[in-house]
Amino acid sequence: MSRVFNFSAGPAVMPEAVLERIRNDIPDWNGTGMSVMEVSHRSKEFVDVAEKATDDLRELLAIPDDYSVLFLQGGATLQFAMVPLNLAADGQAVDYVQTGSWSKKAVAEASRFCDVKLVADSADKNFTYIPDEDSWQRSPDAAYLHYCANETIAGVEFPYIPDAGETPLVCDMSSTILSRRLDVSRFGVIYAGAQKNIGPAGITLVIVRKDLLGRARAATPSLMDYAVYDKSGSMTNTPPVFAWYAAGLVFEHLRALGGLDAVAALNERKAGKLYDAIDASAFYSNPVRKDCRSWMNVPFVLADSSLDGKFLEEAGAAGLANLKGHRSVGGMRASIYNAMPEAGIDALIEFMQEFERTNG
Amino acid sequence: MSRVFNFSAGPAVMPEAVLERIRNDIPDWNGTGMSVMEVSHRSKEFVDVAEKATDDLRELLAIPDDYSVLFLQGGATLQFAMVPLNLAADGQAVDYVQTGSWSKKAVAEASRFCDVKLVADSADKNFTYIPDEDSWQRSPDAAYLHYCANETIAGVEFPYIPDAGETPLVCDMSSTILSRRLDVSRFGVIYAGAQKNIGPAGITLVIVRKDLLGRARAATPSLMDYAVYDKSGSMTNTPPVFAWYAAGLVFEHLRALGGLDAVAALNERKAGKLYDAIDASAFYSNPVRKDCRSWMNVPFVLADSSLDGKFLEEAGAAGLANLKGHRSVGGMRASIYNAMPEAGIDALIEFMQEFERTNG
Repeated sequence: MSRVFNFSAGPAVMPEAVLERIRNDIPDWNGTGMSVMEVSHRSKEFVDVAEKATDDLRELLAIPDDYSVLFLQGGATLQFAMVPLNLAADGQAVDYVQTGSWSKKAVAEASRFCDVKLVADSADKNFTYIPDEDSWQRSPDAAYLHYCANETIAGVEFPYIPDAGETPLVCDMSSTILSRRLDVSRFGVIYAGAQKNIGPAGITLVIVRKDLLGRARAATPSLMDYAVYDKSGSMTNTPPVFAWYAAGLVFEHLRALGGLDAVAALNERKAGKLYDAIDASAFYSNPVRKDCRSWMNVPFVLADSSLDGKFLEEAGAAGLANLKGHRSVGGMRASIYNAMPEAGIDALIEFMQEFERTNG
Repeated sequence: MSRVFNFSAGPAVMPEAVLERIRNDIPDWNGTGMSVMEVSHRSKEFVDVAEKATDDLRELLAIPDDYSVLFLQGGATLQFAMVPLNLAADGQAVDYVQTGSWSKKAVAEASRFCDVKLVADSADKNFTYIPDEDSWQRSPDAAYLHYCANETIAGVEFPYIPDAGETPLVCDMSSTILSRRLDVSRFGVIYAGAQKNIGPAGITLVIVRKDLLGRARAATPSLMDYAVYDKSGSMTNTPPVFAWYAAGLVFEHLRALGGLDAVAALNERKAGKLYDAIDASAFYSNPVRKDCRSWMNVPFVLADSSLDGKFLEEAGAAGLANLKGHRSVGGMRASIYNAMPEAGIDALIEFMQEFERTNG
C-alpha cells in the first residue's frame, strides 16, 4: 500500500480501515457470493446494512425520535432546491445567512423559488468572518432560516448554533457533520453531501424534523419530496447501494473510535496544531477571524506568493497531495476532515517549517 | 473467490474482470496514492476517467455528434420527472406507450406535469405483449413520445424502435442499453439507470439530442435541467465519482469483448437457450408473446406453483441466486444482463431440468 496524505476538499480522504473493508468485500461480500454493488436494495442483506447505517448515525449524533433520517442522491446542491420546495410556499420569504461560496450558491438557487432575504453577509471581508448574530436582519415571517455551518473555501466555521427561535433552522453541514457532537434538536433540517466526512460522493444525508414533512409544493417532483423518502425508508427507487454501504462503514468506524467526543478531541488537536504553526510564522498566514476558524478546512497563504508553485511541487513530492487553495482565495488549503490522520498534520507542519527554513 | 450466479433484476451482476480492477485500485489507484473514491472530480486524473468513459460509450453506441452524453444522479425514476420538465410545457400533451410497470410509473409521474395521453396499453393481458404500432393512438401535437424499451418485471422487450416521425422519441433503456447495437439517431432522449447493464447504482445515463437542450421550464431546479449538465460536462456539482469510474470500466470491458455486436450475439444465444429450455418443457412456461420476449429478463412459472419455494431453496443451494419472480407476476425471473456469464445460463438450465426430473 502506497498512500499519500490527501488534503483534498472533497471528494476527500477516507479512513484506511474502511477502504480495507471495502476491498476485502469484493467480489464476495458477507458470504453472499456477490459484491455489495451487485446486491438488490430489497434484499435482506442490504436492508440490514441500510438500517444499521441509520441506527449507527442516530447513535453517533443522538438524533431524537421525532427526526427522520433520509439517504438521497444529488448532493448538497440538490438540497439548495429541495429545501425551498419542501419548506416554503411560492414567493414566501426565507432567511439566508451568507458567509461564503456555498451559502451564496444556496441563496442563488432558493431565489428561483422564494423571496430570499439576506439576513447577514460577510462578502465585505471576503468571507473571512461570521457577522455577529445580534446584527442579523431576520424576517418576521420567514419559512426558515438557512446557514452553512462550515464554508470549505474560505475556511470559516460557525462556533455555535444560531438561535432561530420558532423558525425552522436549516443547515448545510456537508463539510462539518460528524466532526463533533451536535444538538440536532435545534434544527428543522440538516443536510450534507457525503464526500467530506461521510463517504464516497453520490449519497446525501438529510435529517428532517418530522413535523416539516408533507409540506412540499404540489408540482414538486416525487423524488424531491422529503415525505416520499420518509415513507419508503429512502428506497423510493434504487438507492446508491455502494455509497450507502460505505457510509455505514464510516459510521461504524467512528463509533469504534469512541464516538464524536473522541473524534472532536482529535479534530481540535489537529486543527489547533496547524493554526499554531501558521500563526507562529511570518512566512504563512491565515486571514480568518480566530473565533470562526474551521476545524476542517485550513487555508493559508505564503507571504511571497511567487513561491506557491514551488511549495506545491515539493509538497506533492513529499506525499502531501492536493494542497492548492481554491482559485477565489489563492495560496494553499489543507482540508483535514475526520479521516485525515494526525500523522498527516504532523508531516504537513514539518514540511512547512522546512520549506520556510529553505526559502524564508 | 466464491461467487454465485446472481440473477437479480438490479442492482445486478457486474463483470468479474471489472470487479477485480475495482478491488486492485483500492487503496492506491493509478499511482495516485488514493482510491478513486477520494479523488477530486476536478483533478486531471478523474477528468481523464470521465472523458474516457464518455468516449468509450460514444464509440460503443456510435453516438452522433449532435447528441450530448450526460451522467446524472437519481436513477431512471428521476428522469420520469426530468423528461416532462425539460421537453414539455405545463399541461402540454405528451404521448406514452404503457407496456409494463416501469412505463406505468413514468406515466404517473409525467401526469403531474403534463397532459399524458396513453397511445397504447397492454395492461389488458398483464403486460405480456406490445400493442401493434399501427394501432397506437398518437396525439398530433405531443411534445414527445415515450416508451420503455424493456420491461424488467414481465420480461417484455421492444424488438424494434417505434417510428415517431417528427416527434422526439424518448426511451427508458435502463435494462437493455448496451445489450445490442442501437441507432441513437432515432431518438430525442435516451435514459438509463446504471444498475443493470452499466455499473453500480447511483449514476444515470442520459443521451439527449442537442436541439432539445435549453427548453426546461422556468421553475425547474438547476440540477434537473439537462442544459445545465451539458454546459458543465456533468460536473455542475460533485458527481458520483466512484460509480462513474466503475461505469467507465464496464464500457472498456465491453469494447474489449468486441463491442456491441459481440455482446448482442452472446445475449441472443443466452436468452435463446433459456427460452428454448422453457418452451421444451410442460413443467415451466413463459407467458410473453414470442416476438417481444426480453433478452434481459426471463420470467417463468412452474405449472405447479406449490413447488416454487422448493425450487428457490434448491436453486439457492446450487449457487443460483435471486431467481424469485416479482410479486406482481409470481414464479421465477432470471435476469440475464450482459454480465451474466453463459455458464450461468447453462447451470440454470441444467438445474431446471434436474428439478423437473425429480419433481415433475
